[in-house]
Amino acid sequence: MTSLTLYEHPLNEQVRIYLRLEYLLSQLDEVSGLSAPCHHIQFFRSLFDLLEILDQVQVKADLAKDLDKLKKKLKAWTDVPQVDQGQLNQLLNQLAAHQRAVLQAKRFGQALKEDRFLTSIKQRFSIPGGSCSFDLPNFHYWLHQPLAARQSAIQTWMETLAPLRHALAFWLQLTRESAHGGTATIQQGFYQQEADGACLIRLKISPDLGVYPLVSGHKNRFAIRFMPFDDDHEVADNMSVHISVC
Amino acid sequence: MTSLTLYEHPLNEQVRIYLRLEYLLSQLDEVSGLSAPCHHIQFFRSLFDLLEILDQVQVKADLAKDLDKLKKKLKAWTDVPQVDQGQLNQLLNQLAAHQRAVLQAKRFGQALKEDRFLTSIKQRFSIPGGSCSFDLPNFHYWLHQPLAARQSAIQTWMETLAPLRHALAFWLQLTRESAHGGTATIQQGFYQQEADGACLIRLKISPDLGVYPLVSGHKNRFAIRFMPFDDDHEVADNMSVHISVC
Repeated sequence: MTSLTLYEHPLNEQVRIYLRLEYLLSQLDEVSGLSAPCHHIQFFRSLFDLLEILDQVQVKADLAKDLDKLKKKLKAWTDVPQVDQGQLNQLLNQLAAHQRAVLQAKRFGQALKEDRFLTSIKQRFSIPGGSCSFDLPNFHYWLHQPLAARQSAIQTWMETLAPLRHALAFWLQLTRESAHGGTATIQQGFYQQEADGACLIRLKISPDLGVYPLVSGHKNRFAIRFMPFDDDHEVADNMSVHISVC
Repeated sequence: MTSLTLYEHPLNEQVRIYLRLEYLLSQLDEVSGLSAPCHHIQFFRSLFDLLEILDQVQVKADLAKDLDKLKKKLKAWTDVPQVDQGQLNQLLNQLAAHQRAVLQAKRFGQALKEDRFLTSIKQRFSIPGGSCSFDLPNFHYWLHQPLAARQSAIQTWMETLAPLRHALAFWLQLTRESAHGGTATIQQGFYQQEADGACLIRLKISPDLGVYPLVSGHKNRFAIRFMPFDDDHEVADNMSVHISVC
């Protein structure tokens, strides 16, 4: 059986930012352990994209607030007989630790913004092909340092992002685990649903259907139009898709 | 012995563009054979950077002109007794073939500009983190196609760039092979030289010196200031650097 493709869609602006950050952080993770210069070029592109988002949005305050909301939700389960109180306490302790780390951290990305080397190369990365050796000879020097030196620098930069990474991963994990839903039958390529205070939709779609979803909506209601990837292909009248709401 | 780091610096605008294109084309080559989605994200970033340059600059006309100049230079060696006329003729034939291919090609990048899928995703790639699954669900679908399908699409796109790639590689190779120069002694971190109608400078610098070059200049004269990579480090009073001019 072909494995299903997961599509996620945020229903508010914070989650939209969180998913972008997670996407960029996962790219940083994937390439930071590799050795070829082309991967390290990719590392800096993703890093500067991440810094641009962190510069535009107060992620620290939003994430602290969302962790707090999550704490209130979890606390509502205290003393509920069917709930494993040991596990609940463990989650609450983890959550409190992430909250502390987020609140004690500098503004996310601040340490990287103050890094002289990163600052000296950032601007040119926005020019197409602008990280060439003649554009950025100091970056070219850096790229030709021994691998160990490059990886140590990368590790130092990545460590400054640890409070963000961990708190974000924790919040997204718990949010995703709260998903409820099931298999829905899509008729004529269209679907809509009420969603009481939801923040994220998760769709699992068989690639064999040849479609991708266009989602629109907000916390109380969303609609999905399924589009054919290949224009010559028609969307089936009836399709089964797994839809869940967090 | 540590291997020397090569720095190149263009002395005119065309060569500046050629080096940027070569840099992006080599990134495309390196990642296009890989399989992980993160490498294919990198592929599209480099491709769109390349297309932006090709959109701004008439590379086809410039390259055709530069191939023509090269032909005139090579023809001046005809009937010169010390020159291997067989090899010269072979080069002239190759050059003529590249010239024909360049002149017969559509505007470079035109086929990619007309590709519906590429057009549909290009814009979002300029947004930080803008190629997320919710930003570009069709791109997400593409990324989750079987590797063979992705590689076949990549190959088709790359083939449209073949006349540019080959002619550019040929011109750069012959230009680099025309380099003349040698080891220069750099005093007090500064060097300058006359350069009669040059278009490219090549520097080979030992990374152990801890410096990178800042070049300024034009076709008749250039100057190089050697900067310490690490601010705490001083530039040596006397350094040996290999400098050649093409």
